Amino acid sequence: MPNISRRAEATPESPIRRLAPYADAAKARGTQVYHLNIGQPDVEAPKEFWDSIKGIKDPIVAYTNSAGNIGLRQAAVEHYKEKGIDITVDQIFVTTAGSEAIIFAMLACLNEGDEVIVPEPMYANYIGFAAIAGIKCVPITTKIEDNYALPSVAEFAKRITPKTKAILICNPNNPTGTVYGRGQLEGLRELALKHDLFIFADEVYHEFNYTGVPVPSVLNLQGLESNVVAIDSVSKKFSLCGARVGFFMCRNPEVFHSAVKFAQARLSPPAIEQVGVEAALRHTPRAYFESMKSEYMDRRDLLVRKLRQLNGVVVPEVNGAFYAMVRLPIDDCDRFCKWLLEEFSFEGKTVMLAPGTGFYETDGLGKDEVRIAYVYRCEELAKALDVLAQGLSVYPGRTCEQALPLHN
Amino acid sequence: MPNISRRAEATPESPIRRLAPYADAAKARGTQVYHLNIGQPDVEAPKEFWDSIKGIKDPIVAYTNSAGNIGLRQAAVEHYKEKGIDITVDQIFVTTAGSEAIIFAMLACLNEGDEVIVPEPMYANYIGFAAIAGIKCVPITTKIEDNYALPSVAEFAKRITPKTKAILICNPNNPTGTVYGRGQLEGLRELALKHDLFIFADEVYHEFNYTGVPVPSVLNLQGLESNVVAIDSVSKKFSLCGARVGFFMCRNPEVFHSAVKFAQARLSPPAIEQVGVEAALRHTPRAYFESMKSEYMDRRDLLVRKLRQLNGVVVPEVNGAFYAMVRLPIDDCDRFCKWLLEEFSFEGKTVMLAPGTGFYETDGLGKDEVRIAYVYRCEELAKALDVLAQGLSVYPGRTCEQALPLHN
Repeated sequence: MPNISRRAEATPESPIRRLAPYADAAKARGTQVYHLNIGQPDVEAPKEFWDSIKGIKDPIVAYTNSAGNIGLRQAAVEHYKEKGIDITVDQIFVTTAGSEAIIFAMLACLNEGDEVIVPEPMYANYIGFAAIAGIKCVPITTKIEDNYALPSVAEFAKRITPKTKAILICNPNNPTGTVYGRGQLEGLRELALKHDLFIFADEVYHEFNYTGVPVPSVLNLQGLESNVVAIDSVSKKFSLCGARVGFFMCRNPEVFHSAVKFAQARLSPPAIEQVGVEAALRHTPRAYFESMKSEYMDRRDLLVRKLRQLNGVVVPEVNGAFYAMVRLPIDDCDRFCKWLLEEFSFEGKTVMLAPGTGFYETDGLGKDEVRIAYVYRCEELAKALDVLAQGLSVYPGRTCEQALPLHN
Repeated sequence: MPNISRRAEATPESPIRRLAPYADAAKARGTQVYHLNIGQPDVEAPKEFWDSIKGIKDPIVAYTNSAGNIGLRQAAVEHYKEKGIDITVDQIFVTTAGSEAIIFAMLACLNEGDEVIVPEPMYANYIGFAAIAGIKCVPITTKIEDNYALPSVAEFAKRITPKTKAILICNPNNPTGTVYGRGQLEGLRELALKHDLFIFADEVYHEFNYTGVPVPSVLNLQGLESNVVAIDSVSKKFSLCGARVGFFMCRNPEVFHSAVKFAQARLSPPAIEQVGVEAALRHTPRAYFESMKSEYMDRRDLLVRKLRQLNGVVVPEVNGAFYAMVRLPIDDCDRFCKWLLEEFSFEGKTVMLAPGTGFYETDGLGKDEVRIAYVYRCEELAKALDVLAQGLSVYPGRTCEQALPLHN
């Protein structure tokens, strides 16, 4: 029997999805599970998306251009212009969601065995993408005590080796909810120019910014035109996670052309969703984003307030995206998250969380942390957090002896 | 300015798509272009596909399971059962079209630098997939004189090195239209067992078989359960190339589980098309496939008859898929295909073909070959072939002096 590959052995299971069988079993027992583990937004997708898809007349679903429909690329250019990002249609192409855009950036810019520096805790799938591309994610740890701010340029510089080719950031950040400001990005710019590095920026949460100050896009960093690849997706901004439509943006023609060659090999992004997304980008009023942002800010406020009332829980500043990476008074997040699904329920309910360990590349970190996605309306979110509080108060592996309050 | 990767430099442009700018220019001049270059079928997709999509009520497009919707997997199991292939839902998952399924097979089974033996002429994108996976396609040449039959097992054995981990076949074959019968596959089985190799079989043209004898699936080769990955897609069978829904089928649990981990990293295949494809698989009557096959057989007959009437044109047996790889009396297929688009027209029309060179990994082969996709109804196809005949008769680089007949 032939062996599987080393990279298959090395690829971790998704920390967000590996608990799914326990959740299924809990549901089978009749327990209601609040899914705070996955970033699946619940705001309705724009009506224009569905109207345009339901109006498709052609009975055949043909390949689109490998770079996506030109109309969609033009609509995206207009969308970014409104956000203060000036790119041309020759600098953007359509990918099968943000995931593929990141893989293409890695494939186009890094040789096998090369290194990309990534702040941790990091979006867990970056490690899977790196495995696919045969490269290495080198973590640089950010700390809850600093609200997960980027470490200093000097700290980054310490991780640079002859194999370092890129830095990958996610801004606003999944899983921490941190927003990196202009000053932090300008530090990275100096580093990239000095060491000839690419900067990949996953900006899929660009609309989810609660700081009151615009989130800087790496595309607007002066002098970095040849070094930057920005990644976006409609998954979060339009609640279209399953549509698998994203964008690869880059002003370096060689990198752009290389990524398009990889796109040609896989022929075409999904055609039907492209039609819907073009309509959504062209016609969704600004009010849609404003109301969505206001909804998520209310949830964020509720989450932070309720969690901070619990003894032993540490909640940093949460300024963007729709996640918080919090410290809990527990012995082991993997055990706790599994216990919540397997052994605990409160009034017939439990919560599913993403264990913190899965977001760290450094062994041993994140054991008392979890990622919480606030993707429920406030009333439901409050109930879910009460269930979590109750779980914390009776969990056998809790490290904080004082009883935790319920129903604050 | 940082450099692009070596694999980006090494990845060829798609031979099927690289002539697109010349076709666009021809159209801009008012010339009608017959697209015989790309396998984009023109038969209407099943009505059930569209009905189910247009009936979607949920306003949110959520992630599906990374392995695809369970209902779709079950529908696929039934579909394969009807075709005489017995697999279970634990042996099939949904991919973002056949392209992704092949990439996952390579990633799961081969280490970087490993080799896969592929009969050439080969589907050109296999080279791109191999570049993405960091592996090497080792060609084994099949010949037009043998109707592109698989070479002997002894010939295959000569290409096996310590790095050989798999054989990749496409059956029925793109680009040649060859169908490999049971005897040829059983030769490969012995080889795979003896040398502990995987066999990857791209079976996306399974329905397009004009031999009168069922095409054997590698899934039905006894004793190869641990070695085989079969790839399918709905692109061709339902004219849904842009839907990006395919299947990864494998009875080796380790390989299957590894591929699912890569699937988890990219989260989800496209959600909306999965709904449509499930309905199409469940409700499309057998008559749909019968009528499609009969239509393509008529086209195949017309193509072979008309091309064989042309002096200097060599047309092998064409038994499956909807392509023929033919030899033309020309000096250089790349020059000829470009000339057709740039300099030639007949009654305001020209044809676009895929140059043969792009389907060979061995340098220098395929210079007098082209791939022709017969994806037009007979009347249109006849006109397209008349235009091609006229082009051949006046092409300055023709190697056959005798005038070519027109309008046979």
